[in-house]
Amino acid sequence: MTLDPGLRRAILDAVASLEADSVERLARLVRCPSTLGQEQGALDEMARNFEALGLAPRRVPTDPAALKDHPGFSPPLIPYDGRDNVVAVFTPRGKRGRSLALQGHVDVVPEGAADLWVTPPYEPDVRNGRMYGRGAGDMKAGIVSYLTAFEALRRTGVQPAAEVQMQAVIEEECTGNGALAAMLALPRTDAVIIPEPGPGFAAVYSAEVGVIWAWVTVTGRPTHVREMHAGVNAIEAAGIIAAGFKDYEAEMNRAERVHASFHGVNHPVNVNLGSFEGGEWNSSVPTRARVGLRVGVMVGYPAAQAKADIEALVAKLAADTRLRGTQVKLEFKGFHAEGCVFDMDSEIVRLAKHHYADSAGEELRHYAASGLTDGRFFTLYQDTPTAVFGPDAQDIHGIDESVGLASMHDITRTIALTMAEWCGVEPLAPGAHA
Amino acid sequence: MTLDPGLRRAILDAVASLEADSVERLARLVRCPSTLGQEQGALDEMARNFEALGLAPRRVPTDPAALKDHPGFSPPLIPYDGRDNVVAVFTPRGKRGRSLALQGHVDVVPEGAADLWVTPPYEPDVRNGRMYGRGAGDMKAGIVSYLTAFEALRRTGVQPAAEVQMQAVIEEECTGNGALAAMLALPRTDAVIIPEPGPGFAAVYSAEVGVIWAWVTVTGRPTHVREMHAGVNAIEAAGIIAAGFKDYEAEMNRAERVHASFHGVNHPVNVNLGSFEGGEWNSSVPTRARVGLRVGVMVGYPAAQAKADIEALVAKLAADTRLRGTQVKLEFKGFHAEGCVFDMDSEIVRLAKHHYADSAGEELRHYAASGLTDGRFFTLYQDTPTAVFGPDAQDIHGIDESVGLASMHDITRTIALTMAEWCGVEPLAPGAHA
Repeated sequence: MTLDPGLRRAILDAVASLEADSVERLARLVRCPSTLGQEQGALDEMARNFEALGLAPRRVPTDPAALKDHPGFSPPLIPYDGRDNVVAVFTPRGKRGRSLALQGHVDVVPEGAADLWVTPPYEPDVRNGRMYGRGAGDMKAGIVSYLTAFEALRRTGVQPAAEVQMQAVIEEECTGNGALAAMLALPRTDAVIIPEPGPGFAAVYSAEVGVIWAWVTVTGRPTHVREMHAGVNAIEAAGIIAAGFKDYEAEMNRAERVHASFHGVNHPVNVNLGSFEGGEWNSSVPTRARVGLRVGVMVGYPAAQAKADIEALVAKLAADTRLRGTQVKLEFKGFHAEGCVFDMDSEIVRLAKHHYADSAGEELRHYAASGLTDGRFFTLYQDTPTAVFGPDAQDIHGIDESVGLASMHDITRTIALTMAEWCGVEPLAPGAHA
Repeated sequence: MTLDPGLRRAILDAVASLEADSVERLARLVRCPSTLGQEQGALDEMARNFEALGLAPRRVPTDPAALKDHPGFSPPLIPYDGRDNVVAVFTPRGKRGRSLALQGHVDVVPEGAADLWVTPPYEPDVRNGRMYGRGAGDMKAGIVSYLTAFEALRRTGVQPAAEVQMQAVIEEECTGNGALAAMLALPRTDAVIIPEPGPGFAAVYSAEVGVIWAWVTVTGRPTHVREMHAGVNAIEAAGIIAAGFKDYEAEMNRAERVHASFHGVNHPVNVNLGSFEGGEWNSSVPTRARVGLRVGVMVGYPAAQAKADIEALVAKLAADTRLRGTQVKLEFKGFHAEGCVFDMDSEIVRLAKHHYADSAGEELRHYAASGLTDGRFFTLYQDTPTAVFGPDAQDIHGIDESVGLASMHDITRTIALTMAEWCGVEPLAPGAHA
């Protein structure tokens, strides 16, 4: 099946006509401060987006009891009540083509120090062709691209000739449990597109590392600072443990440990000291300190093995003479995620690359990511061809996160053309929503 | 003036008869969780204690505007509204003796990890002759001792023959501004007793270090962990700064820098890393981290010089290549306290040592403290002879803080006898409160 040149032209025109609307749609999503536990506004916005396409939104709960034995499940950080994923399923009149899932996460990471942003993180601002705001890049622009792509087809008088699932999920940034729940709640599709952003340029993910989140709590032996040497400072003790992970990181990045999919990538396995809190009073030796760590896992290295490594490492560090008298507790909450490789030769990826090159005028670059996406679920546990690609985003998870709007439109065009070719098209029913 | 043996015996008997009451009084004070900003309950309890002695409590505000040019003033952490110190002044019928101030702070440091306590920190519990609870030792037992000592004199039918001020103040644990305000609001007395606890044994303070509190905030350069090497981790940067203070600490403890009053004291100048907080998300390179430090200052070394040292140290550390791209902010809030030496040959100290030895059967040990008390205000800024001595307390500022009750009674006896001898006594007026 190849795309009719006239239809192709019509789709490109339709995307162009929807550019302003799509920027508005992105701004509405960025205005939802959808950090962990606060995703409801963004999910409601997505329900409205689905309704605007004439589709019936459906809520998909994330039920830990139902998911806990799945190998892709991660230990949750907080309960799931009131934060159901939202999906919409388009059903064609005739199911002639191949089905497709369009998936994106609505959750964003915290904004960091809001005062450092040029404009407030949840007040989207467009400067020099980029929209700034937390989540603008990761990955609300991608979500807007799939919504607009679907709308663009309708505007040309056609619709996909196969089932198209649209999934808006939570917790991509800490567990992936939202994606897992939504994936299991819906029929398997013939392919998946996840428009996650590229790292400063539009890109298609060729591979991604796994990630483990670990938390280390050290209970020291507090005392009046006047006898501080009788105590053990929990903050210093926790710092010793955190520092010990740097050796592990160096070891895991040794060339012989790096999977072929990451050759040429500098330092793919990162250990991030993400949070640290301890103590209460400058003149008291602190009782307790807690460190939150993100540990990258090389493709091909089982996440369970990485957890075992972390357990052994923490046990070794806890036995350091400087930590004598302390109690060290290790917890795993959040990501228990395997690395994965995406098949760059799958038809869905080849179509996406073709249509991107054809409409954007440049090749979609391959990206072996030292971060992760929800793409692993469809790839590892469902064997579904998955294309993870998206627009140029900058300062993802950082201050002044932004997305290039022209790049977002490139991705919209790419999804629209790829969907039309993958699913095939059928005429809209007379009087149907266009 | 020496104490009449019959009166001495009567006072000791009166203290003995008040032991159970004084333990109850201590329990009531410990039940007030008088951490910073929460002192009101303990201050109200002190007002009731003063009223029970037939004295009229008076509130003394801590007014930063009025105090800010005083060399003993420290930058406040929080506002003073609704947290006025409470004092009571006893006036004899004939002012024949020497006046005395009895001073104690009602504020306590945070309880640390409450779950580590054998019994809850604000539910006083007596085990093996010790009362456990936050503040039991530091220094509510001492306050109870001065209250009970005054009451014991009355019970023998006498009262001091000179003005006796009783001061209950806030913020000894972070600024001393409460003590400064109360001292300035009342007439200078001929001597001061502050029943601060000894370090595991009853003791009289011979000297105390100064203390500076400093706060260092590091703003790093955050980024997605997938490109973490493009950012600077604020937690790691703050850790580098905190570690740099250890060299300063070692330098300041070099033998030739230690004042004669601290000879024989192991490591008198302590730098405590008291609090640390930074980051928000395990998978984001943290934006900002804040470290709270307590820096000891040797006697004879000006606090202003220590501040200048800290400024120079932080500036040097901020220039470390590992901190490139970060912003480092240094703030001074809390203690700006000079060290001081107490005159062990002053009559008030000699009397206290004499009466302690005579009634407790052992010498009151001298204690050169690597922590501080409010005693410095009266000594440095008012040249008033000051005796800082108190009972055996353990795990001050730590978990399971406790005071030895027999030791508290020893201190009560010592204060009562010292007050009677220092102030002289006069008979109670007929019908007076006894």
